[in-house]
Amino acid sequence: MNHAATAVDTQCINTIRTLAMDAVQKANSGHPGTPMGLAPVGYTLWSRFLRYHPEHPDWPNRDRFVLSVGHASMLLYSLLHLAGVVEIDEHGKRSGQPAISLDDIKQFRQAGSKTPGHPEYRMTTGVETTTGPLGQGCANSVGMAMAERWLAKRFNREEKALFDYNVYTLCGDGDMMEGISSEAASMAGHLKLDKLCWIYDNNTISIEGHTELAFSEDVIKRFQAYGWHTLHVTDANDLQALSNALEAFHCNRGAPTLIVVDSVIGYGSPHKHNTAAAHGEPLGEDEIRLTKAAYGWPEDASFLVPDDVRTHLRDALLDRSESLYEKWAEHLLQLEQYEPELADELRRMRAGEMPEHWQKHLPSFDTDAKGVASRAAGGEVLNAFAEQIPWLLGGSADLSPSTKTNLTFEGAGRFSADDYSGRNLHFGIREHAMGAIANGMALSYLRPYTSTFLVFSDYMKPPIRLAAIMELPVVFVFTHDSIGVGEDGPTHQPIEHLTQLRSTPGLLTLRPGDANETLELWKVALAQTHRPSCMVLSRQPLPTLDRTRYAAASGAAKGAYVLAGGDEPEVLLLATGSEISLAVAAYEQLKSEGIAAQVVSMPSWELFEDQDQAYRDSVLPPAVKARVVVEQAGPLGWDRYVGQTGAKVVMNSFGASAPLAKLQEQFGFTLENVVKQAKAQIQLTQH
Amino acid sequence: MNHAATAVDTQCINTIRTLAMDAVQKANSGHPGTPMGLAPVGYTLWSRFLRYHPEHPDWPNRDRFVLSVGHASMLLYSLLHLAGVVEIDEHGKRSGQPAISLDDIKQFRQAGSKTPGHPEYRMTTGVETTTGPLGQGCANSVGMAMAERWLAKRFNREEKALFDYNVYTLCGDGDMMEGISSEAASMAGHLKLDKLCWIYDNNTISIEGHTELAFSEDVIKRFQAYGWHTLHVTDANDLQALSNALEAFHCNRGAPTLIVVDSVIGYGSPHKHNTAAAHGEPLGEDEIRLTKAAYGWPEDASFLVPDDVRTHLRDALLDRSESLYEKWAEHLLQLEQYEPELADELRRMRAGEMPEHWQKHLPSFDTDAKGVASRAAGGEVLNAFAEQIPWLLGGSADLSPSTKTNLTFEGAGRFSADDYSGRNLHFGIREHAMGAIANGMALSYLRPYTSTFLVFSDYMKPPIRLAAIMELPVVFVFTHDSIGVGEDGPTHQPIEHLTQLRSTPGLLTLRPGDANETLELWKVALAQTHRPSCMVLSRQPLPTLDRTRYAAASGAAKGAYVLAGGDEPEVLLLATGSEISLAVAAYEQLKSEGIAAQVVSMPSWELFEDQDQAYRDSVLPPAVKARVVVEQAGPLGWDRYVGQTGAKVVMNSFGASAPLAKLQEQFGFTLENVVKQAKAQIQLTQH
Repeated sequence: MNHAATAVDTQCINTIRTLAMDAVQKANSGHPGTPMGLAPVGYTLWSRFLRYHPEHPDWPNRDRFVLSVGHASMLLYSLLHLAGVVEIDEHGKRSGQPAISLDDIKQFRQAGSKTPGHPEYRMTTGVETTTGPLGQGCANSVGMAMAERWLAKRFNREEKALFDYNVYTLCGDGDMMEGISSEAASMAGHLKLDKLCWIYDNNTISIEGHTELAFSEDVIKRFQAYGWHTLHVTDANDLQALSNALEAFHCNRGAPTLIVVDSVIGYGSPHKHNTAAAHGEPLGEDEIRLTKAAYGWPEDASFLVPDDVRTHLRDALLDRSESLYEKWAEHLLQLEQYEPELADELRRMRAGEMPEHWQKHLPSFDTDAKGVASRAAGGEVLNAFAEQIPWLLGGSADLSPSTKTNLTFEGAGRFSADDYSGRNLHFGIREHAMGAIANGMALSYLRPYTSTFLVFSDYMKPPIRLAAIMELPVVFVFTHDSIGVGEDGPTHQPIEHLTQLRSTPGLLTLRPGDANETLELWKVALAQTHRPSCMVLSRQPLPTLDRTRYAAASGAAKGAYVLAGGDEPEVLLLATGSEISLAVAAYEQLKSEGIAAQVVSMPSWELFEDQDQAYRDSVLPPAVKARVVVEQAGPLGWDRYVGQTGAKVVMNSFGASAPLAKLQEQFGFTLENVVKQAKAQIQLTQH
Repeated sequence: MNHAATAVDTQCINTIRTLAMDAVQKANSGHPGTPMGLAPVGYTLWSRFLRYHPEHPDWPNRDRFVLSVGHASMLLYSLLHLAGVVEIDEHGKRSGQPAISLDDIKQFRQAGSKTPGHPEYRMTTGVETTTGPLGQGCANSVGMAMAERWLAKRFNREEKALFDYNVYTLCGDGDMMEGISSEAASMAGHLKLDKLCWIYDNNTISIEGHTELAFSEDVIKRFQAYGWHTLHVTDANDLQALSNALEAFHCNRGAPTLIVVDSVIGYGSPHKHNTAAAHGEPLGEDEIRLTKAAYGWPEDASFLVPDDVRTHLRDALLDRSESLYEKWAEHLLQLEQYEPELADELRRMRAGEMPEHWQKHLPSFDTDAKGVASRAAGGEVLNAFAEQIPWLLGGSADLSPSTKTNLTFEGAGRFSADDYSGRNLHFGIREHAMGAIANGMALSYLRPYTSTFLVFSDYMKPPIRLAAIMELPVVFVFTHDSIGVGEDGPTHQPIEHLTQLRSTPGLLTLRPGDANETLELWKVALAQTHRPSCMVLSRQPLPTLDRTRYAAASGAAKGAYVLAGGDEPEVLLLATGSEISLAVAAYEQLKSEGIAAQVVSMPSWELFEDQDQAYRDSVLPPAVKARVVVEQAGPLGWDRYVGQTGAKVVMNSFGASAPLAKLQEQFGFTLENVVKQAKAQIQLTQH
């Protein structure tokens, strides 16, 4: 097929390039070089291949375009502008505005604009995921492609496909070097995700200079080793070759496709092309004039969109996608008619709603002094919810026997290249990719969860942060949540991790104290629509508290509640998770000595801070200054609740390798010590 | 050469296996399967190849043995025991005890033992690095191999090699799947580190089951793509084949070597071999008896080391290494004689001492209202120190033009496969590996630093944590340390990161407020011998304070000091880093209104907590309850210093993409707001 560039193609491409140059120059900040180099790639993909309806940017079966090179945001903004994509909110409501107007482009990187420095999901219609931290978009796109396979299995009927979208990812040298993309690529190859296409911008320039400074591997061979199809386009400006490669991708079966495209960063800039200087700063007025001249562009025009360009890309998208969209809508109507329950399921998924009876058939846990590890209770609870929520699915970075997150009910199955309908995901020992893949799935109507040990939250902090920025209700399960890990020692015992998670804006950190709190907090996590949760669970058994004697576990949903005591307490005992039972034991001991204590179970600081002042004061009466916190984790942040003079029975160092009981003795997590600290607090505050 | 197993070889191997089984069983915790599978590999390497003198485990030119599969710690402990390695402390002092006695093995995983669950550097002689979190050991070993090349360049003279050690790394499926090892392997290939050998234990079993659940890539082809030599041994029990492969490694030039060894986890266990059940729990008494029977081992014997085994490995090591060690000692003597300064340098490096004049020729910074970014001041200071400290070297994850960490003086050079003497390292866009490689270099006498943006500390938290656990004085430089990043937006603006670093035990977090504090804190960082430091620096210019008007910057070394004010202050203004000048401006404003404020510059919580109570009270007078903290970062932890009622001018959400001045207005980092908060605090505390 003849795919050579036409005059209008060239005009469009140069429009994208010059918009990027002009916007960065006006903002006096940004990255012009990559949009200039990749404009033909983005344009070819959008104009000739992308199945995308500009009037329906929330069409569930649209092809996904992921700009993993998020710094090249102007490329995406220009495409969205030229495509005439309309603005919609998250409920599909139209504002009557374009997703990106020319004025928006002129407001690039300014306060309150729709064109921030890096593309931000929820801020700009058409941005499929927030990108910028390198490698994340690549791994997100694997999650989107996995979601497509799962959705196809669930919703497609014979020839009537509701889901058969492709996922295209633009990535760069950084993506190729970051470990997370290696993990994600290995997994995509393993899962044979043949609707996934990564386009690697091989411009050989990174910030420190030529990539040969640090990068000399054979990328194509590496991806072949992962089981990918590979293609090589040796000139990013060759629209024919690009089109051939994208057509080849469509024919490739049984494996994802990598297209390596040799490009020139800052293409057309006489003095800055092919240099790091074109990467992250404005070209400068003079160089912009020279570059425009090189394109045959009016040198004095700024933010110019020529008339013949104005609707060209939009028309091309409509030509290709309008009938596809209509056929899709017809399929959906048929689903609504013949399988209304399934259609309702899809509606709920799109709306972020839970099934009607998602809280039915939940387990409850009887009082049990020996108790059960919260990881085990968590597994039981998760299974109960998952049976009611068909699109709740997830897995572990090779630790499910330990994290207890396997879905064991009939039909849960294993997600694999042989059966994409499974709901148990085997991420392999790839925590970082796991987090970002979960984000990609959450961006695709699914409710994913992940699991590993709490100490390894360190390996996946970047996607946890991005889930919080994007407001994705992913549930990150972390077990083995303290020195309760015992003999595995300090490398496996989290200390600072609760603080790390609590310090991340927009993230719920949930650390239940027994099986019934675990149930309540899983409910909270699943009820979220805009907040990710970290479910922090114990390795060791925790007594299941007698809820006739102590307060109901439902209080956990408020973040903190009075578990025991309450009448004019002399001292407050604050605790979370596995330390709740120790606090309760201390309370009983003090009571037997005639001292009134109050135990505050505090599984979630964030939920507690959401409560009004009156409630907070009822839980932590301001008049009671004698306070002790007991938590097998680092101290940072507890001053907020126990004050500067409160006692902290916490971990002030790394842990050690020994049986838990020994460690608890060594680090002061004993009944004796907690009681002693409580009495000392009473003494201190009475003076 | 005939390398078939002799009877005593088999005895030694089975001793290692049974010690692992017995120790795990006695501890009722641990990982027997991998030591059982890898015993022949460890044994062959140590008995036939490793250049290691059991009497001199601190011999600088010893071959390094890195157990990246740290859970297989019993393999290492058994080898150290059979090798008869002597115990020494970090100053080379001998205790007269073995590194690992049989009793130590019986104390596996018990409190205070030398045989913790995972190998811990500084705890057990012969443990080259703390391992357990997967992938870290692999990347450490790349750092060790880079160090070898650098040390060889610096200290070898013609045929007299002081450094030509090999680095052997035992790794597993987890290492192969983790992104950090991909990053490290790509870099090792790029740098052509031909004295590096990774031995991949291809046992095809991970915790969730067969690796084919999640891992089907062609590992050999992948490493070839990285530029490695690859070899395949199809039977871990074939000592001949293992020996041939290790000999081939010695002949390989110009590239690191990967040896894939097919092994059987839990080898010999009739019911558990080749299953995940052999991975992470005791085999059970019955299965141990059956397994011993399968080995032809006395079933009733526990912790048995047969007589012919007792000294066999030690003798083999001595046979090979004694003369090498003596020749090396001779070379060192010659160096001391002919190049005493260089010899002194090596002595200092080994002792962790700085050069005599390391604090000479330092810059100082004049008062300057416009000022200089602390990243820029940091670069100048770093260069000044580096000129005096020849073994201070480092680099960036492709951001040195932004982090300003390039060494620019004559002779600094670039570390590359063409010139291993360079001191500027190009890590590529591989933050995670960068951190762990730096750890490996710090384990090899060098003083490494790394650099990237603060937000990307998320990508390298695992090695930062390990540096803290291992007490390695690495300097992690992080620039672009707040919303000062401006237009790049929330993905690039750190919020929770200061809290994360401050919450990590054993880590110094240093955030200087102007150029002179930057100098003082770099001095602190380099003076550390057992603590890693994070040097947190601004993107934007910071005024260089008039130190005749305000207190001397040397106070920064105490973590916090009174910068301005001090006589019966009505309100304390606490600030760090880029917010110091705002606090000072507020102080001046309040002063002009007749209100006595006191500015506390607080660049390091950890250093401040190291001071005595009297000093701390002098800086933060307990009587003054009116307190405002100003920091462009999250609030968590500040209650400790401003109390529950103090005001916090901090970031309570993610940032946004806009010019910094706009962001400061939006988030309240204005003179007006700080003054307002200060007055409100005075009001509040007077009532």
